[in-house]
Amino acid sequence: MEIDLKSIHSPEDIKGLKLNQLTDLSAELRAKLMKKLSAHGGHAGPNLGVVEATVALHYVFNAPKDHIVFDVSHQTYVHKMLTGRIDAFLDPEKYDDVTGYTCPRESEYDLFEIGHTSTSIALAIGLAKARDLREGKENVVAFIGDASLGGGEALEGLDFAPELGSNFIVILNDNQMSIAENHGALYEHLAELRKTNGTAANNIFKALGYQYIYVEEGNDLKALIQAFEAARDADHAVLVHINTMKGAGLPVAEADKESFHYTAPFDLKTGTPLNPSDAEDYSEMFARHMLIRMRDNPKIVTLTAGTPGAFSFTPERRKAAGKQFVDVGICEQEATAVAAGLAKGGCRPVFGVMATFIQRAYDQLSQDIAINNLPAVIVDFAGSVWGIPDMTHLGFFDISLMSNIPNFVFLAPASAEEYLSMLDWAIDQTEHPVVIRTPGGPVIHSGRAVNNDFFKYDIVEDGNEIALIGAGSFFAIAEKAAELMRAKGFKPTVINPRNLSQLDCGCLDTLKDYKTVITLEDGILDGGFGQKVAAYLGNSPAKVITLGLKKEFLDRYDADEVLKANGLTPEQIAELI
Amino acid sequence: MEIDLKSIHSPEDIKGLKLNQLTDLSAELRAKLMKKLSAHGGHAGPNLGVVEATVALHYVFNAPKDHIVFDVSHQTYVHKMLTGRIDAFLDPEKYDDVTGYTCPRESEYDLFEIGHTSTSIALAIGLAKARDLREGKENVVAFIGDASLGGGEALEGLDFAPELGSNFIVILNDNQMSIAENHGALYEHLAELRKTNGTAANNIFKALGYQYIYVEEGNDLKALIQAFEAARDADHAVLVHINTMKGAGLPVAEADKESFHYTAPFDLKTGTPLNPSDAEDYSEMFARHMLIRMRDNPKIVTLTAGTPGAFSFTPERRKAAGKQFVDVGICEQEATAVAAGLAKGGCRPVFGVMATFIQRAYDQLSQDIAINNLPAVIVDFAGSVWGIPDMTHLGFFDISLMSNIPNFVFLAPASAEEYLSMLDWAIDQTEHPVVIRTPGGPVIHSGRAVNNDFFKYDIVEDGNEIALIGAGSFFAIAEKAAELMRAKGFKPTVINPRNLSQLDCGCLDTLKDYKTVITLEDGILDGGFGQKVAAYLGNSPAKVITLGLKKEFLDRYDADEVLKANGLTPEQIAELI
Repeated sequence: MEIDLKSIHSPEDIKGLKLNQLTDLSAELRAKLMKKLSAHGGHAGPNLGVVEATVALHYVFNAPKDHIVFDVSHQTYVHKMLTGRIDAFLDPEKYDDVTGYTCPRESEYDLFEIGHTSTSIALAIGLAKARDLREGKENVVAFIGDASLGGGEALEGLDFAPELGSNFIVILNDNQMSIAENHGALYEHLAELRKTNGTAANNIFKALGYQYIYVEEGNDLKALIQAFEAARDADHAVLVHINTMKGAGLPVAEADKESFHYTAPFDLKTGTPLNPSDAEDYSEMFARHMLIRMRDNPKIVTLTAGTPGAFSFTPERRKAAGKQFVDVGICEQEATAVAAGLAKGGCRPVFGVMATFIQRAYDQLSQDIAINNLPAVIVDFAGSVWGIPDMTHLGFFDISLMSNIPNFVFLAPASAEEYLSMLDWAIDQTEHPVVIRTPGGPVIHSGRAVNNDFFKYDIVEDGNEIALIGAGSFFAIAEKAAELMRAKGFKPTVINPRNLSQLDCGCLDTLKDYKTVITLEDGILDGGFGQKVAAYLGNSPAKVITLGLKKEFLDRYDADEVLKANGLTPEQIAELI
Repeated sequence: MEIDLKSIHSPEDIKGLKLNQLTDLSAELRAKLMKKLSAHGGHAGPNLGVVEATVALHYVFNAPKDHIVFDVSHQTYVHKMLTGRIDAFLDPEKYDDVTGYTCPRESEYDLFEIGHTSTSIALAIGLAKARDLREGKENVVAFIGDASLGGGEALEGLDFAPELGSNFIVILNDNQMSIAENHGALYEHLAELRKTNGTAANNIFKALGYQYIYVEEGNDLKALIQAFEAARDADHAVLVHINTMKGAGLPVAEADKESFHYTAPFDLKTGTPLNPSDAEDYSEMFARHMLIRMRDNPKIVTLTAGTPGAFSFTPERRKAAGKQFVDVGICEQEATAVAAGLAKGGCRPVFGVMATFIQRAYDQLSQDIAINNLPAVIVDFAGSVWGIPDMTHLGFFDISLMSNIPNFVFLAPASAEEYLSMLDWAIDQTEHPVVIRTPGGPVIHSGRAVNNDFFKYDIVEDGNEIALIGAGSFFAIAEKAAELMRAKGFKPTVINPRNLSQLDCGCLDTLKDYKTVITLEDGILDGGFGQKVAAYLGNSPAKVITLGLKKEFLDRYDADEVLKANGLTPEQIAELI
């Protein structure tokens, strides 16, 4: 039977279907999904793996009355297809009408904007508690992957939910993969449960008081529907463990699960990227440099919290790094504390992490590393307006987050030369914890030697009356603005501060009698670098203008437009004087 | 046999003792500990419970070659007594020679400054990995309590450690208590393990691959030594579960475990506080107010992450709050996400938390609450220079931490009237996530009506040329400084900003032509309120002086001295003009 996907406006439209029709529907959804994924890119593996599970979810449960919280919510494409947003998956012109995550602005079927892992169970506990207080009867479902389950926030929720003593359903989507391979003892246990068809001794979920249901055929609609129906309306906590195939139905994605976790547009048959880029890349540069450093020094350890791809640590490179590479799973808190322990133990840990994800480890940065003043190195990626433009993955809060922690030296390189020099300096010194913020935008080669005293600003042009202090990726904007100013007859001083956590008071003192000091930073102004400069010069004649990003959650923005809206184009800056 | 405690300079001095001598030693240590605790105060219950376990630890393991990491490290008094610091427990004049936590500045037996829960396992993983890389053979031991084990960072570590495939020993000190009662399914499981002498089905530790050893008599030296010897030098992960008695040996502490978790000086026989205070207290005010509000509105829910005492929610009050009170255990991440879920579900969550502990939930504040713009209320305590003066519990980073998160309204009341008005406003509105920072220092009654438009500053004195903007607890300092200035013939404007996250630009615009604007805040300057004001006024004629605390980790400080060192006395401020 041909299914007309356009006729599906809400889950109500699938509730009357028979099993064979649901099977046809799933095939049709998967076909359209593959077409969009190959043309548009996206989270291929996670979504292809849960086509049947999503159909079964909406067949069995009554959303939006029943509440379904999807962990990370990067696996909700089929959910969106079934909840009134099918056009965004059928019509290429509408592909961008939906975000890549659940989005309450789009639909009442989406409860939260979610993009970080491991939050679903605790969010669902809140919904369940609210339900219990008003004596409601709806189901509350947390749909969580095996990789997310290992995160601390998820484990905290998993531990607490049974105490509610009321309906609470966890669907554990076990596709045997993190973004890369899984780590941690829990995954050994899940493997044991799969091997024994759910009957392994020492069942961790039973130990915590869950009713445990195992579904071996997690891409089989009948098995899924039976299991979900068995869990529905339970008056206690139930965990349904479903064994799914990441990338199911797309051979290239089934074969290379890591590459197809998230992918740019690709050829459906071969999996080859449609628009390959050979542009230079800071994360490649980092990976190559770390491999050389680790080879020469067995004490250097590169750490990741489940996202080695963030810094181009491919499976081959992980293998080359051997014991000097540690992936703790998606556990930024643990990774940060492990870095502290490694530093205490005499190693030189370098923790590579996305700027948006290090947010989860503020307390560990402060308590485990900074209070103990341990020389651990954090290198963050996509901490820039040119980072990931999704609301849940913004990378421009990191200066505000980390530069205000005592003892940390927060470095913002403006070029490839500075990036590698700072990395070497951070690894070789043992006096300070260090953050290095990988620049955003295209790789810049300054061609200049780097002064390794990173507590001193670099005065790149020595002028008068006007100073431009351009931090990190925005130093290039400062240089361009200076050029425009020079064309107008001014002679601005141009400074690359490099260090955003300790002011170079000697340098700033020379600016006290300037007319105007302009700071630029690739991050929110609030809590950032420019405000420190403004405060330091607050009692001096110099006027200070701080430029940077407004404190706001942008979504799917165009970086050029954001720069313009914040007065950050060279032309706008040149006009300030 | 009389044991001369003064003869114990290091663990070497107990290794030759026989069991009966070790027993005598333990009794002697406990007696001296009780004497100090009753005279000096401290973490009574946790330390009295682990006297024997600590003696056994140092008898069996070879610190400092073997590495022992104590979770929270508030239970290390006996450890300090055995590692060269006995005088600080025998001589009242030396009681303050040691901190209340492990402290590498004091001793090589202390590996880290630790004061927050749940970090020991991940820190120990780092030490173990460093050992493995240099092919060392020493033991790595994480000593962790049952309450800490439920925290996400601990569970992340528990999950990962067996993957090391080398010596790793977790000693789970199960005293059946958190600071208050325990919460979560894990504790039901521990109870089951205790009930079955360690033989319960579905052993969670075995599920994760640990060798599991249960010690029913966790205050019995012989049993402890046997178990620790069985774990010592293992080439894999071992978890030793010891069943101890919190407060052991002190009847009042055994009987009232919550009150004697941490206690001020008390009478050893009766447990009565020696220096009772009947001073008014903001946390009492909060608790009384919340109980009234919850009684009248069944949608209001008060949340804690294992520290109800932080806001005077005694067992009686928790009982009175009934279903409207939720304790998730020491899981700030989960509590924050639960607050988001409750708000989404139509409830009015109020999460009471120590300023130092909310650090663990930055990502959840940002992602779960702020991005979703949910009207959850965070009320933080001891966020002040007058908070807890221990390095690991400092409360003056919270403005910098939370006021820079988009969408959050960060309120700093300066009086009891404002505190309660802000609390009511925050609970009753549904437009914004709100942080209310409980004032530090003695309760102040302004006697003034409160304008509930918390996006506008309160101009308390309208003057000219000089403005003092005093935030929160420091508003009182601004008022005193203004008085001194008036005595000198000036007529300063005095402003209570109240809101530290959104500038009142209208008000600040009226200050642009002032000579001097002085900001005061009870927190670090970096990333704080004053720097925002300085940046806003940076391009105007007004000079801005920002006063607040230096970004540093202080330890056991005197608040008056810190204020003076930072130029924050009224006299120092009056002299600025």
